[in-house]
Amino acid sequence: MSTINLAIVGVGKIVRDQHLPAVAGNADYRLVAAASRNGRVEGIDNFGTIGDMLQAVPSIQAVSLCMPPQYRYAAAVQALEAGKHVFLEKPPGATLSEVEDLAARAAANDVSLFASWHSRYAPAVEAARTFLAGTRIRAMRVAWKEDVRQWHPGQDWIWQPGGLGVFDPGINALSIVSRILSQPVFATEATLEFPENRDAPIAALIRFTDATGLDLLAEFDWRQTGPQNWDIEAETEAGPMRLSEGGAKLTVDGQLLHAEPEQEYPMLYRRFAELIRAGRSDVDLAPLRHVADAFMLGRRKVVEAFHD
Amino acid sequence: MSTINLAIVGVGKIVRDQHLPAVAGNADYRLVAAASRNGRVEGIDNFGTIGDMLQAVPSIQAVSLCMPPQYRYAAAVQALEAGKHVFLEKPPGATLSEVEDLAARAAANDVSLFASWHSRYAPAVEAARTFLAGTRIRAMRVAWKEDVRQWHPGQDWIWQPGGLGVFDPGINALSIVSRILSQPVFATEATLEFPENRDAPIAALIRFTDATGLDLLAEFDWRQTGPQNWDIEAETEAGPMRLSEGGAKLTVDGQLLHAEPEQEYPMLYRRFAELIRAGRSDVDLAPLRHVADAFMLGRRKVVEAFHD
Repeated sequence: MSTINLAIVGVGKIVRDQHLPAVAGNADYRLVAAASRNGRVEGIDNFGTIGDMLQAVPSIQAVSLCMPPQYRYAAAVQALEAGKHVFLEKPPGATLSEVEDLAARAAANDVSLFASWHSRYAPAVEAARTFLAGTRIRAMRVAWKEDVRQWHPGQDWIWQPGGLGVFDPGINALSIVSRILSQPVFATEATLEFPENRDAPIAALIRFTDATGLDLLAEFDWRQTGPQNWDIEAETEAGPMRLSEGGAKLTVDGQLLHAEPEQEYPMLYRRFAELIRAGRSDVDLAPLRHVADAFMLGRRKVVEAFHD
Repeated sequence: MSTINLAIVGVGKIVRDQHLPAVAGNADYRLVAAASRNGRVEGIDNFGTIGDMLQAVPSIQAVSLCMPPQYRYAAAVQALEAGKHVFLEKPPGATLSEVEDLAARAAANDVSLFASWHSRYAPAVEAARTFLAGTRIRAMRVAWKEDVRQWHPGQDWIWQPGGLGVFDPGINALSIVSRILSQPVFATEATLEFPENRDAPIAALIRFTDATGLDLLAEFDWRQTGPQNWDIEAETEAGPMRLSEGGAKLTVDGQLLHAEPEQEYPMLYRRFAELIRAGRSDVDLAPLRHVADAFMLGRRKVVEAFHD
């Protein structure tokens, strides 16, 4: 199989931490160019805009779009209309409607679009899904509590409208929940806490249910100091289940069933290559839809100002 | 063709003003029962809950669900799982996710689901769509400004989370806009004004665009006294277009092209019968998706308290 000429757009922390190592370790790809307002990737051609890059390097076959979600649509349209396959970092856009449009454009241009949800590739997610499919769930609790100062230092876009605030990590939890449950859930109640000086929530409490009346409560909080929590717990007829460390570790009835080193981004890039070779797209909007539903349905509460 | 045995659930103002006359005037239907917490329909069997009604009147073939959107899902699941066709008043639910689930259930149960958008059946909407398809749009302005005290007197649910506030009428504008434009649009910026004592917005300003850079501004306001506005104006290469009175009247370049008496609910019920007979569903979520996008993307502004 010939390698895929890949370009990366929006070179920031996630690209350096995750994308570049994952691409370097995958023989399916040759990284040929990057475009970014500020960042650079050493050893390849760098451009200021995706438009300049696509014009200068026609051999590009696929692009990974890693800029903040508010700027992703315009870049994705350029890439798709130029016949390139597109990998979207999460969340795939600032609105559901724009991503629906991208999916239609990918189909019309006969290229692959991949709306990636890295947490779905956490090591124990599939094992949790299999476990839950074989039992009955009595209640589920999601706690995604982290220190925003530690994980998003100085990232202003995350606090701006469309930046999603605490839903930026929370959507990872929702991407796992919507994968491990066999029935679709939907929000019935939410409270969103907005710092008085910010346009995005710092905390959220969301109650979900499904057609069978599932009791599912999700708590997202960015003010957590000390130990950090990325846990999903379920009371089931087969005993308590605990999917912890962001999907890395699975415990059932106190027994550790699954704990492997995480390989999320390497798996995302394997999946993207598979989609390109199969001529298919993968655009599951459920996690972003849950976020939009929570915003639409949620009660707003103003809380004390947040300063970085 | 045999008539369809119809039942209505949630008997309030919209049922008395619109549904009952439309059903009475359509020979496709026989109204056989109603269920409502408070309301009643004279001359047929009335029940307190949809569950009691479906059990007592097995001959029901289709139901219209007209209760507030926060209560629609549970009723729809009961009806669909009992093999009944379902007509959903607008908005079709309190969340996008629950309506996606309903669409899947309708398909699984081989019955028709109709997410109705009555304003799309306003007299001049199709003529506006045809006009716009033949020209280039330079800019578009939507103004939906009405007096909430006149149109929604004492309707508490509309101010509660999930009641959508000014988006309850605004979604009518969005249902027209998404019908008359040939390219999909998406929100890029929004400001939502919440009265300090309410959980839903009283006004909203939303900027939309599309892949070609369309300049579309929508203004929704519930504080309008005096003349009421439900207007969509476009500057086009073929002159200015004005779709006014909620889609009833079309003027191009000052010339009145279209003004007929409105027949929105009669047309909705004709459409529902067609869908049932064709074995199809019609669940276009675009208008509700735009609302959810605006909530997710929007800046919140607290304004003075509103008292009915």
